[in-house]
Amino acid sequence: MAEKITPRATDYSQWYIDIVLNAKLADYAPVKGCMVIRPRGYALWERIQAGLDGLFKETGHVNAYFPLLIPESFIKKEAEHIEGFAPELAVVTHGGGEKLEEPLVIRPTSETIIWAMYKKWIQSWRDLPILINQWANIVRWEKRTRPFLRTREFLWQEGHTAHATAEEAREETLRMLGVYRRFAEEWMAIPVLSGVKTASEKFAGAVDTYAIEAMMQDGKALQAGTSHFLGQNFAKAFDVTFQTKDKTLDHVWATSWGVSTRLIGGLIMMHSDDKGLVVPPRIAPTQVVIVPIFKTDTKAAVVGFAAKLRDALSAADVRVVLDDDDQNTPGWKFSEYELQGVPLRIECGPRDIEKGQVVIARRDTGEKAFVPVAEVPARVAALLEIVQQALFDKALAFRKASTRRTDDYAEFRRLVEGPGGFIESGWCGDPACEAKVKNETMATIRVLPIGQSAPEGASCVVCGKKAAHLATFALAY
Amino acid sequence: MAEKITPRATDYSQWYIDIVLNAKLADYAPVKGCMVIRPRGYALWERIQAGLDGLFKETGHVNAYFPLLIPESFIKKEAEHIEGFAPELAVVTHGGGEKLEEPLVIRPTSETIIWAMYKKWIQSWRDLPILINQWANIVRWEKRTRPFLRTREFLWQEGHTAHATAEEAREETLRMLGVYRRFAEEWMAIPVLSGVKTASEKFAGAVDTYAIEAMMQDGKALQAGTSHFLGQNFAKAFDVTFQTKDKTLDHVWATSWGVSTRLIGGLIMMHSDDKGLVVPPRIAPTQVVIVPIFKTDTKAAVVGFAAKLRDALSAADVRVVLDDDDQNTPGWKFSEYELQGVPLRIECGPRDIEKGQVVIARRDTGEKAFVPVAEVPARVAALLEIVQQALFDKALAFRKASTRRTDDYAEFRRLVEGPGGFIESGWCGDPACEAKVKNETMATIRVLPIGQSAPEGASCVVCGKKAAHLATFALAY
Repeated sequence: MAEKITPRATDYSQWYIDIVLNAKLADYAPVKGCMVIRPRGYALWERIQAGLDGLFKETGHVNAYFPLLIPESFIKKEAEHIEGFAPELAVVTHGGGEKLEEPLVIRPTSETIIWAMYKKWIQSWRDLPILINQWANIVRWEKRTRPFLRTREFLWQEGHTAHATAEEAREETLRMLGVYRRFAEEWMAIPVLSGVKTASEKFAGAVDTYAIEAMMQDGKALQAGTSHFLGQNFAKAFDVTFQTKDKTLDHVWATSWGVSTRLIGGLIMMHSDDKGLVVPPRIAPTQVVIVPIFKTDTKAAVVGFAAKLRDALSAADVRVVLDDDDQNTPGWKFSEYELQGVPLRIECGPRDIEKGQVVIARRDTGEKAFVPVAEVPARVAALLEIVQQALFDKALAFRKASTRRTDDYAEFRRLVEGPGGFIESGWCGDPACEAKVKNETMATIRVLPIGQSAPEGASCVVCGKKAAHLATFALAY
Repeated sequence: MAEKITPRATDYSQWYIDIVLNAKLADYAPVKGCMVIRPRGYALWERIQAGLDGLFKETGHVNAYFPLLIPESFIKKEAEHIEGFAPELAVVTHGGGEKLEEPLVIRPTSETIIWAMYKKWIQSWRDLPILINQWANIVRWEKRTRPFLRTREFLWQEGHTAHATAEEAREETLRMLGVYRRFAEEWMAIPVLSGVKTASEKFAGAVDTYAIEAMMQDGKALQAGTSHFLGQNFAKAFDVTFQTKDKTLDHVWATSWGVSTRLIGGLIMMHSDDKGLVVPPRIAPTQVVIVPIFKTDTKAAVVGFAAKLRDALSAADVRVVLDDDDQNTPGWKFSEYELQGVPLRIECGPRDIEKGQVVIARRDTGEKAFVPVAEVPARVAALLEIVQQALFDKALAFRKASTRRTDDYAEFRRLVEGPGGFIESGWCGDPACEAKVKNETMATIRVLPIGQSAPEGASCVVCGKKAAHLATFALAY
């Protein structure tokens, strides 16, 4: 069995790392700042991929694959883009034993290489829209890293769309923000705040960046996905024009949007407890584990019984595993599957078989119930729904309880230092006030509500002038 | 519509490139030797991934993800491995604006980084076997490149397994060779020869390399997948030992196996014709296209009829598309979907509706038949099977007709220059004879039959001594 997990109350950061390592989700790689995603962690990513990919295809997107290596000169074509990404680039200088004529950077994001191709593919309004997504690996030379949450290499998807009008591109930006919100809430049971970023927090090269932000159990915010309205910035940098229906020439309008393996970090920190991982049923690679309880003389009967149960659940499309290993004790197995975060555990022994029942235990609450065998498939289906909703409700209740409202700077500072969480405060819109908060408290504006002005009477938490926005501030990962 | 495709008879290489570009499967990237896999090409890869991934999981494998970047020193630990891969490495020398202490190479294959991790994960026989696969991108600085067939970056899967005994590892090597064979033949309708490579053609670091080899329409061989028995080579290089059941210490036994986006190149070259791509139904992203034939006044009725047909096929799990665009003529659409290689086309116009029938046309043979509407789903299901089998049978017949047997070197040379194809010839086993053939004719031994000695009376095609093997020689991609 795994070593003990540090309790959250003792050391939240260590608790997180203990879960990642002990549940075998990831391991440190020999290259600094990189991780190995182990099979159990990757199985979560496969579930995330399948869910998101389905939503992308439902909304008309197709997948493609663009090169890993980007000519250094491309990255420099969009002024804000290079300013944002220059400090994080990994550079290939040699290939096939020779020094390259032009260094190549490993993609930190793919706008530049993709817009270089869009220039070849787009001539007329008939070629638009282009709705492409890519599943890929990304390298950003980050200084401080943590498995899943921030690594020098990570896996992600990046959507890159091209449109004939600004309106259509803006619509797409918000549509994909909605897809991310839906995925986070309905699949991962992570309630999120969606909104727009301030200028200082937006993507390097975007006109507007929208994000979904989740609150972790320590009250800190995690940016879980972003969707950017890029305007004509990249079309201008790469000279991508098209003939409009009116036979005029215009630059193409763009969006990009992405989520990454960081979502797995969010999943861990959102739901897990001091026993280990807790995974919402919809995203769980294994939803139910059956642990038969037997001695040598009862093994055949109990395992046979358990196998029938497994087959019945499997036939009902439940992702179920039967652990009939006889090297480990049932107690060891209980702890192990709690550590792994399997949502439901079914226990059955000789006496249960006699009585025609099993025990079903919930990972999230620890509740146990006896269930007649015939009712197991229906009860499991119902419980999976119940657990999914319960995890979301619990997370939402926590976020609500940890969201506070003040326009008073002294109180604001106390809140940041004290309970943390989200702080809703008036903001005048001046970057200087935003910067002062960040410098003095490390809290940042996570999002501003979309298309809403500040409520009557709200004033800027820093300068006291009339507030333009009711901003959500927090410390963030 | 696309530009004209060069006929195979005129220029086979140009025909291939024309299909890749005109069917929009891939495009040249701005970085030399790299390609962009466009949505239609990537959709083929998604089908390949889904099929193979299912077979890997059925055989007990799980997916994981290891880092892109490998310390240069790792690559050098296995002597043959570095000798084989050194000329093809892309090297990262700078990260985050600073020169790295140790250069990092972009993975040309992942044995070294994976065995560095296996050292951490394996202590006892209880930790074995490890059956891990990875879907990833790979960079090899190739000199001459061609889309899909050989590119500096490509996508692949690489399985890396660890075992307690040589027997088990050898079994795994052959099991995965069998999986590749089955996938190539049953999914892609590509008949393959499976066998073992000679020492000069094996993977750098392997004890034995097994491969599946297909014959393209120009008679050249394409290596479509490889499975390696690595012995204890990497375990020794990375000092990976385990405690056996008998409490002794032994080095771990290994396999690795992979197929890549090269399979898409093989798919194109195997089945396509002068009109464009031909895709076997099982791997086709779109299996049926419905082209309604209408004028303005009949559009509503015909498209309504076609939509019902689409829904019926879709409900029967057929991947079907209805093209009701009114900007392009039916003739244009016919050519376009022939170019794209959609296996079946359904045509329906006002008169067909009156008669309660449609036309179903096969992409592979051009055959057309009237089919009563009620019978369409059953007929489509049957035709998809028939086309799948017909493509395989045609390819197999071609290979058989293009495989010749000789132990006479003069005839051998005439065959290589003339019709090409596979040449079965005796080989004594001496690398010098193998090298002479390669130098003088460019033909190489593609595979030797597994566990079979040469037939009675066979002599080495070069030196005339008694043959140890009946080797299959060919020019190859």
